[in-house]
Amino acid sequence: MSTAEALKVPDRALSPVDRLHALVAADMASTDRAIHERLGSAVSLIPDLAKHLIDSGGKRLRPLLTLAAARMCGYAGDRHVRLAAAVEFIHTATLLHDDVVDASELRRGKLAANLVWGNKPSILVGDFLFSRAFQLMVETGKMDVLNILAGASAIIAEGEVLQLKSANNLKTTEEDYLRVIEAKTATLFSASAESGALLAGAPADQIAGLKAYGYNLGIAFQLVDDALDYSGRAAQMGKSVGDDFREAKVTLPVILAFSRADDEAPRDMARRYVDAARDALAPLPKGEIRDSLLQVADFSLGRAS
Amino acid sequence: MSTAEALKVPDRALSPVDRLHALVAADMASTDRAIHERLGSAVSLIPDLAKHLIDSGGKRLRPLLTLAAARMCGYAGDRHVRLAAAVEFIHTATLLHDDVVDASELRRGKLAANLVWGNKPSILVGDFLFSRAFQLMVETGKMDVLNILAGASAIIAEGEVLQLKSANNLKTTEEDYLRVIEAKTATLFSASAESGALLAGAPADQIAGLKAYGYNLGIAFQLVDDALDYSGRAAQMGKSVGDDFREAKVTLPVILAFSRADDEAPRDMARRYVDAARDALAPLPKGEIRDSLLQVADFSLGRAS
Repeated sequence: MSTAEALKVPDRALSPVDRLHALVAADMASTDRAIHERLGSAVSLIPDLAKHLIDSGGKRLRPLLTLAAARMCGYAGDRHVRLAAAVEFIHTATLLHDDVVDASELRRGKLAANLVWGNKPSILVGDFLFSRAFQLMVETGKMDVLNILAGASAIIAEGEVLQLKSANNLKTTEEDYLRVIEAKTATLFSASAESGALLAGAPADQIAGLKAYGYNLGIAFQLVDDALDYSGRAAQMGKSVGDDFREAKVTLPVILAFSRADDEAPRDMARRYVDAARDALAPLPKGEIRDSLLQVADFSLGRAS
Repeated sequence: MSTAEALKVPDRALSPVDRLHALVAADMASTDRAIHERLGSAVSLIPDLAKHLIDSGGKRLRPLLTLAAARMCGYAGDRHVRLAAAVEFIHTATLLHDDVVDASELRRGKLAANLVWGNKPSILVGDFLFSRAFQLMVETGKMDVLNILAGASAIIAEGEVLQLKSANNLKTTEEDYLRVIEAKTATLFSASAESGALLAGAPADQIAGLKAYGYNLGIAFQLVDDALDYSGRAAQMGKSVGDDFREAKVTLPVILAFSRADDEAPRDMARRYVDAARDALAPLPKGEIRDSLLQVADFSLGRAS
């Protein structure tokens, strides 16, 4: 899996993602502290390996969604920080296992952990982070939050198995492809936003709105990411261009090429998901965070240009 | 990891483990149904791979401890079944990942899943089962149960990393070895028993007693299992004799051989843990289940003879 974490903004202006970070800057600083505290272990290989990936310049998009959702829904406590750390740990665990499964060489512009330490520690440290994520969620004291993230984790694993089966299969349909990116990206984006709203005790329409926002944003991000994999530059992406091709992942550009559709089709499809993400925010309170989330949605389209 | 699941009773008499099974037979049948229901997925490779291991004649020792603990503490509901299924899923997930890490060829007398389907599906199906375990635990509605099992999972992963670091290191001490088997075996035995008592709302001394019983039983089982690995027969063990040696795991027989201690020392040490396990059951209600757990403890020593 790879998403917008590797994104570099070419000019000095703040990107919409940076602006959203600025709106929850204190919370994100607390989340980073929680992340570093909770990946500690007497077995030093664990924090060494985990920090290699966690400190490699990822954009923390998923915890950002959690923090923004909680604050937008009026949350005044501090347990959203632990929830945000949990979400980042789940994401990091899936990246570690993905990189073993894909035999990745590069992740966020650095050697992948599996190349530095080997596959075995990457598998086991992934398991450790996944367990730590559940410990952090337990500390939020909210069973519905645990339920959503446990369900999301199962769907992510299912999606990865489905992707394995789709590899090398040129009969993979657009529908199969969407099922894979829904599972491997949209589900955690969605759960990250929804769980923040749940923790805040938001009304049902706001919870549903943030869930739908996260879902649609996740699909759009992954569509653009897969398009970048075929047209981007390695330095911009932080991974080797064409990794997906060498790994024989059948992504939408490949499917559309085989069905003779237009090259621009992935981006057109992404635009429809961005529109759905924007619409989903209608029930949420107006204000800086909502404005920023709307801009993040638009930005997800533009980042390849 | 390998424990007493592979144990075959040489004569036709019921072993103490079989007798404990018989005492909770209806609950165990419900647990097996829950296990098979919950490993279902539209991605058929997931149940195919999971069933290969789950239906391979494991003794279900950990869910057995959970069911026995809940019933012994007077639990009258049905959510202990989901908890028992969760415990078995956590164990199965760790076995799948262990077999990838150890490049195992045999598990419970069958080809290991990683040899049948490859490492990639084994890693991802392990992740799926781990997530399913947390979903099942959420359904128990008990946050303290989730806390114990999330903590146990983190300790198991830590222990596996520690074991990787100890491999090939003949300076591994008896203390290091005990830390590894505590993490990789005793922790889940302990959490399985403790969480059953917690779900039942047992008094603190009974919860602590079952936790200590599980811990000490787990250490004794693993000590005897490691001794068997050097002296047992493959058919009896369900794994290749000497796997640990080829994998360069430094287990107690190796440590003691290097320190010129007696061959019988692992079993003498196991006996001390068995005594501690028996003592720990003192606060628990007298009855058939307690008697059976006492016999299981004794039996863990005798199984190699």
